[in-house]
Amino acid sequence: MEALTSHDTMVMFLALGTLLLAARVLGELAMRFNQPAVVGEILAGVILGPTVMGAIAPDFTGLLFPAAGSLPLVLDGFSILAITLFLLVAGIEVDLSVAWRQGRSALIVGILGIACPFALGFAAAWAAPQTLGAEAAAPPLIFALFFATALSISALPVIARTLMDLNLYRSDLGMLVVAAAIFNDLVGWIIFAFVLGMIPENTSQAHPVLLTISLTIAFTAFMLTAGRWLIHRSLPWVQAHTTWPSGVLGLSLGMALLGGALTEWIGVHAIFGALLVGVAIGDSAHLREHTRTIISHFISCFFAPLFFASIGLRVNFVQQFDLFLVLTVLAIACLGKIVGCTLGARYVGISRREAWAVGFGMNARGAMEIIIGLLALQYGLIGERMFVALVVMALVTSLISGPAMQRLLGLAKHPRLSDFVLAKAFLHPLQARKRFEVIDELAAALCATASLDPAPVQAAARQREELMPTGMGNQLAVPHARVEGLTLPLVAVGLSATGVDFDAPDGEPARIIFLILTPLRDNGTQIAILAEIARIFATPQAREKVLQVKNYTEFLAILKTERK
Amino acid sequence: MEALTSHDTMVMFLALGTLLLAARVLGELAMRFNQPAVVGEILAGVILGPTVMGAIAPDFTGLLFPAAGSLPLVLDGFSILAITLFLLVAGIEVDLSVAWRQGRSALIVGILGIACPFALGFAAAWAAPQTLGAEAAAPPLIFALFFATALSISALPVIARTLMDLNLYRSDLGMLVVAAAIFNDLVGWIIFAFVLGMIPENTSQAHPVLLTISLTIAFTAFMLTAGRWLIHRSLPWVQAHTTWPSGVLGLSLGMALLGGALTEWIGVHAIFGALLVGVAIGDSAHLREHTRTIISHFISCFFAPLFFASIGLRVNFVQQFDLFLVLTVLAIACLGKIVGCTLGARYVGISRREAWAVGFGMNARGAMEIIIGLLALQYGLIGERMFVALVVMALVTSLISGPAMQRLLGLAKHPRLSDFVLAKAFLHPLQARKRFEVIDELAAALCATASLDPAPVQAAARQREELMPTGMGNQLAVPHARVEGLTLPLVAVGLSATGVDFDAPDGEPARIIFLILTPLRDNGTQIAILAEIARIFATPQAREKVLQVKNYTEFLAILKTERK
Repeated sequence: MEALTSHDTMVMFLALGTLLLAARVLGELAMRFNQPAVVGEILAGVILGPTVMGAIAPDFTGLLFPAAGSLPLVLDGFSILAITLFLLVAGIEVDLSVAWRQGRSALIVGILGIACPFALGFAAAWAAPQTLGAEAAAPPLIFALFFATALSISALPVIARTLMDLNLYRSDLGMLVVAAAIFNDLVGWIIFAFVLGMIPENTSQAHPVLLTISLTIAFTAFMLTAGRWLIHRSLPWVQAHTTWPSGVLGLSLGMALLGGALTEWIGVHAIFGALLVGVAIGDSAHLREHTRTIISHFISCFFAPLFFASIGLRVNFVQQFDLFLVLTVLAIACLGKIVGCTLGARYVGISRREAWAVGFGMNARGAMEIIIGLLALQYGLIGERMFVALVVMALVTSLISGPAMQRLLGLAKHPRLSDFVLAKAFLHPLQARKRFEVIDELAAALCATASLDPAPVQAAARQREELMPTGMGNQLAVPHARVEGLTLPLVAVGLSATGVDFDAPDGEPARIIFLILTPLRDNGTQIAILAEIARIFATPQAREKVLQVKNYTEFLAILKTERK
Repeated sequence: MEALTSHDTMVMFLALGTLLLAARVLGELAMRFNQPAVVGEILAGVILGPTVMGAIAPDFTGLLFPAAGSLPLVLDGFSILAITLFLLVAGIEVDLSVAWRQGRSALIVGILGIACPFALGFAAAWAAPQTLGAEAAAPPLIFALFFATALSISALPVIARTLMDLNLYRSDLGMLVVAAAIFNDLVGWIIFAFVLGMIPENTSQAHPVLLTISLTIAFTAFMLTAGRWLIHRSLPWVQAHTTWPSGVLGLSLGMALLGGALTEWIGVHAIFGALLVGVAIGDSAHLREHTRTIISHFISCFFAPLFFASIGLRVNFVQQFDLFLVLTVLAIACLGKIVGCTLGARYVGISRREAWAVGFGMNARGAMEIIIGLLALQYGLIGERMFVALVVMALVTSLISGPAMQRLLGLAKHPRLSDFVLAKAFLHPLQARKRFEVIDELAAALCATASLDPAPVQAAARQREELMPTGMGNQLAVPHARVEGLTLPLVAVGLSATGVDFDAPDGEPARIIFLILTPLRDNGTQIAILAEIARIFATPQAREKVLQVKNYTEFLAILKTERK
């Protein structure tokens, strides 16, 4: 076997490590500003690649990502593997039963949501291919089909994430959007598979177009019916007779790889096979949550950031940025998708504001358009300018999706306890030993941090406490009050070494005490925070851990890591 | 960027998918025969590679694992990444505090356990390098040092696994063996790093030997002190301020990759850096169990099988099998290690039988010698014959370790409920509606399967039940009896649709009923089984799932997947 030299190995680890850490750091920063992580991950590649570092310090970029030798091939192999496994996760997250349950409404929204942008995109690309960045050698029909498809597919993972953030995922509207996105994506990917099968560079070495298309249809039909059934039937056997969870993990990953090999052989990309294997596996009620978590966390934290960062490496995003093209692509994409979905939603009887929210929700493109654009770039259908425009379009549509829905539906973000606990109002240990003194101590700390007058706050919390004691049992107490002039909730936390009697139902003194202040019009935030406290501290282990923390950071880490 | 062709991509996925599935299947088979999974994983490569398929169907092997072109490089890159991440997991599993707590005893056993095989191996290799498979060009000193090291390192993961299987992991003896293996491995790997630094092919492009050695010592010292402390201090911050668990997963994997790059640059292999990063991360009390599980499960199920299967691909294990060499290596390796450790254990005051058990326990080499052998092969220190001998030695010492300890200490394997539940004694639904009739029905089914006379069994179980009812509450009941003539426990399971009154403390009727028969001399098996039932069905969710199963396989799957 040919082998990498020691220098190659060193550069490989350096490149992968740097990409991964940069992608994670910028991904976290993006999320801090309520943006999808993928924005930061691509930005990491843009910074490390030709666009920024390549211009400032070409030697550095040349060392880390050499253009010749063995490494480009190895990194290309990694990125293909990474994106294929990412599509496995995307497939596992697809819940076909949700799609069926929403039935006709979802089907109509999904179909109109793909038909409108497809028609618009096809017409535009057919009329003016060169303006839209087609390569001179690209066959016009295939380019038009590609461009139409690239505008039509939604990004189910981004949509699901946005809905969860808005606490809409389990609502009727949320389920409709998810179900419509599932139909949309399945149809979109199948069309895209056909387009891939028609690309001459792609099929010349494999099969005639018709064979590729027939095989794609046959494989898709098989995986969504018999294949799904076979997997569902074999999962209990695998879980009963092999090591848990190694057996089922090995089976899932192995099938995804072989599914990828099969679709690559058919003449459509490996990602399509992994996606369908994922859909079939994820659909089985026998797949345990633990297996799902391991696959999706590891792939999302390792393979996905590496892939998206590598996108940023591929081209120079400044040199190839063509404002006219970017705006045109963005306009056609948004117009087709938003209008199509909104019309569909209106047609099935959804109110006007909510219908627009469905339209903006489905408009998120995220990762999927980027993957499609990359393949088109590699097959020579589009040039780098168009690739940049597609990436920007995918990011912008993802960015506006959440805020637009939030505004249209007048929603607040799903409140999280960890967002409201203030570092300076973390009292460890509490000085006070009595119930009302503890309330005063916590209120004083919280008001000092938030520049509030403590007296009325203390009075309100005491009054509420007198009405009905707030000891929850399990060593927890949650005194609270509504406070005039607040716009966001504020939470103070005190840990008591000795315990304070809060008249809990189980008679135990409270040792972990939260003082929760909410605005007068609070829209259920207080209930949400109380529920989260109960959930986080449901186990004795979690309470034990909290009582052993040394500082605020360790406390916050427990809030985050014990959250289910 | 250079890119893989579609054909290359297809072959890559086909090769990885086939390797992974074959490795998992044979790994499971190996475990079924109480052998480490790594035996089956290597065997998968031996079958798919030149040894078997290459001889029977060279076209197939040539297609799947081409010898030229881009793919060998890509697969080599994968396998280096895979082994490096595997060493990260091995490092995370090292618990330094265990080593310190065992202190002097562990240090003595660990040092003697490395000094004896090292001295013996060095002497043999120095006296007769060619007989021991040194390449003609290999410098005698370096070869002797390599050979000595290759015999000295234990395989902590295999040892830990064996101790867990024997239920010895938390015992004094188990802790001593683990602690000694930790000292042993740390010293062994550091020596090995020096040997790597001395190999001319390796250092010629990097640093002088002395610099490599100094840098290795400095890096090791840093990671075990300041680096460990820094990671420990930063983990709460990362968990508090980044997405959970993506932030900490990204940090761990990124640091392992950069650590690998650093040690590769220093002139020792990347695995060394990842191992030390793993030790430093795993040592922090702030690392959550969930993070540990995701990293170790995914890497053990995906990267590790791919790596070990690729070992089987590297050489022809039949052609290069040299019985004399294999037996010589095996004899020197076992003699040095077992005698050294046993002497050490005797010296610190351990009884004779237990001291031998320590010796055989530490004798397991497993994955580590294989990795070391592979590097030596790549650097041209040894030929393929010696590589095969080292692999065989590593596997054989791992195979005999568990059974030898079991026999020396007179232990039974840790009993597992799922081993004793018989498919034909799974009654769903139970016909009987009354307590004693249910016992009779379960006993009849169990005795029919096991060819026992039901009458005395029924009488014994009824008598035990009359003495004290076996309703556990939570819808569970566990009637049981000791039965003459049994050598292993037998368990029958009945699910009752209506519920049966077993006089439980919570007053609820039992719906999941286990009849447990144990031998007259049962050594605590019955208690272990009862405890496992209580643990598996502690949550209402688990009980709910069981009541919805359709057949025995689904029931067994729940036993395995709900086991904590």
